[in-house]
Amino acid sequence: MAESEHAMIARLLAPLSDGLPGAYGLTDDAAALRPPAGCEFVVTMDTLIDGVHFRFDGTPPSAAMAARKALAVNVSDLAAKGAEPFAYLLSLALPAGHGDWLDGFVSGLASAQDDFGLQLAGGDTVRTTGAFAVTITAFGSVPTGRMISRSGACPGDILMVSGTIGDAFAGLTLDRGDCQALEWSGHLDDSDRKSLLSRNRTPTPRIQLIPALRQFATASLDVSDGLAIDASRLAAASGVGIEIDASTIPLSAACVTLRTAGKLRLEQLITGGDDYEVLATLATGSEAGFVEAATQAGVRVTRIGRVVAGTGLAVRESAEKLMQLDRLGWDHLS
Amino acid sequence: MAESEHAMIARLLAPLSDGLPGAYGLTDDAAALRPPAGCEFVVTMDTLIDGVHFRFDGTPPSAAMAARKALAVNVSDLAAKGAEPFAYLLSLALPAGHGDWLDGFVSGLASAQDDFGLQLAGGDTVRTTGAFAVTITAFGSVPTGRMISRSGACPGDILMVSGTIGDAFAGLTLDRGDCQALEWSGHLDDSDRKSLLSRNRTPTPRIQLIPALRQFATASLDVSDGLAIDASRLAAASGVGIEIDASTIPLSAACVTLRTAGKLRLEQLITGGDDYEVLATLATGSEAGFVEAATQAGVRVTRIGRVVAGTGLAVRESAEKLMQLDRLGWDHLS
Repeated sequence: MAESEHAMIARLLAPLSDGLPGAYGLTDDAAALRPPAGCEFVVTMDTLIDGVHFRFDGTPPSAAMAARKALAVNVSDLAAKGAEPFAYLLSLALPAGHGDWLDGFVSGLASAQDDFGLQLAGGDTVRTTGAFAVTITAFGSVPTGRMISRSGACPGDILMVSGTIGDAFAGLTLDRGDCQALEWSGHLDDSDRKSLLSRNRTPTPRIQLIPALRQFATASLDVSDGLAIDASRLAAASGVGIEIDASTIPLSAACVTLRTAGKLRLEQLITGGDDYEVLATLATGSEAGFVEAATQAGVRVTRIGRVVAGTGLAVRESAEKLMQLDRLGWDHLS
Repeated sequence: MAESEHAMIARLLAPLSDGLPGAYGLTDDAAALRPPAGCEFVVTMDTLIDGVHFRFDGTPPSAAMAARKALAVNVSDLAAKGAEPFAYLLSLALPAGHGDWLDGFVSGLASAQDDFGLQLAGGDTVRTTGAFAVTITAFGSVPTGRMISRSGACPGDILMVSGTIGDAFAGLTLDRGDCQALEWSGHLDDSDRKSLLSRNRTPTPRIQLIPALRQFATASLDVSDGLAIDASRLAAASGVGIEIDASTIPLSAACVTLRTAGKLRLEQLITGGDDYEVLATLATGSEAGFVEAATQAGVRVTRIGRVVAGTGLAVRESAEKLMQLDRLGWDHLS
């Protein structure tokens, strides 16, 4: 007989709620949560499905990676909004016969929640006839009224991005193990390969950037569906245009190598998605302060463009030439 | 080409956030929510999957029923905790080719959220290769520190339940349309049949009972997996035993008819689940006040047993005889 839901929750999940009094050790139907004094909650919800959002081979290590990614993509949303991770709810849709990979999933969650600074408050577990699916609702806290929205960018602001763009796209391609992956591998050393794979499998939410964003950002979001589409969303929400200078987009050494070898194009890197970097706008005078605060927090940030009057996104290859993009990035329903 | 996620959200879902400022009209990645002054949030999360938790025939009306049920089961959790509905997040996992039933789903949500008094704050939409699935995180508000837990029952308390028990089980059986359903139908008039079907398809969360529960309940939960298993969970969380007098369990006229005709047993009704009634314990002296408050709120409540020292659940058929239950109710992973 399968372990009962009650026994599974008590054995595996309840320890993840340690230190969060309102979770009642996961023995109740609900949790009681209140933001710290002077703060409100920022809440976000993401569903990841096996075969769509992560690759899962039924082993405990791949389950642990799926768990980390599921929590990371939610925490990435919080960080881009300037919200400190606070707690999360977890719903698991489990196919029959999950065996011991569920233990791997929970150990991945445990390590990720320690790294990101939040605890499990509750959730649900159900049987599914379909694929393994994980839904997380994450709670962050911000000083009341201070969530950094998508809509605060003004013409004249500059555009900054954290980290490097496109590694997750390259990592996903390598993960496929097809002919293209083999060809690419010939151009990469072992550490490049590992780095690209991990950028796709276990993204790192930029929580260290929260104080700098709170102090300087006029608008912000996390790059999850592709730099191009997410920049165009920020532009639309703010009622402005955005220009990106293609030559300034930060790329990892591995992606530069592949690009130089003619194996991939910049267009693929800025439409590939799953970067989980932060794209933020700042008043011009804030650049030095933002770069200093980010650098002290250990996060590389790069100026890649500007906010202009108008609408839409232009990616500029030179003073005269705009990049033609066949598509901007991922739409979840296309 | 399928409608983009962005267009679908703007057209169908954004109107559900009207009146909730922190939802930003669903144009941002996250929502900003704070409980009313002096209150904290009670949060709960439930996933419902087509073919497991609701029957969905691909038509707009059945999608509307699924939507109402998904919101109702979450709000039922809030009500049993004494929390006023405040807002909710929605994640939809959509199979390809959802056609016009998505409009039906959203109209069902719109009508349910009006009835229950909460608005949509955000969420996620993803493609799934499996069945249509809905996950909702619901937020309620309670005066800080006043969530009614499962764990406050004391020996000497009395046990009360709202409404009637077992209708959803009978409705589910009728819904199957098999030989047993046909046989049962012969004993029921049209209004009985409709009533049982709707009790399963569109449960009614007992939000009117919230003030009475806040004033009088020592412990409370909603009956979702079966009266017997949920009573035993309340007993375990409180570290007490519970005795239920079988003859006092409130049944609808339709279930009494079927039982009298020998077509179903009480055991089936108290282990069938999906009732979404409230099971609460009170100090003995509170019974009259609780019954009066509930009656004024339009909710029938019935005393069905008592809290005793010890552990576990006993369902008493007479002073000498205990009911033998092969199973207590639903476990989500069995």
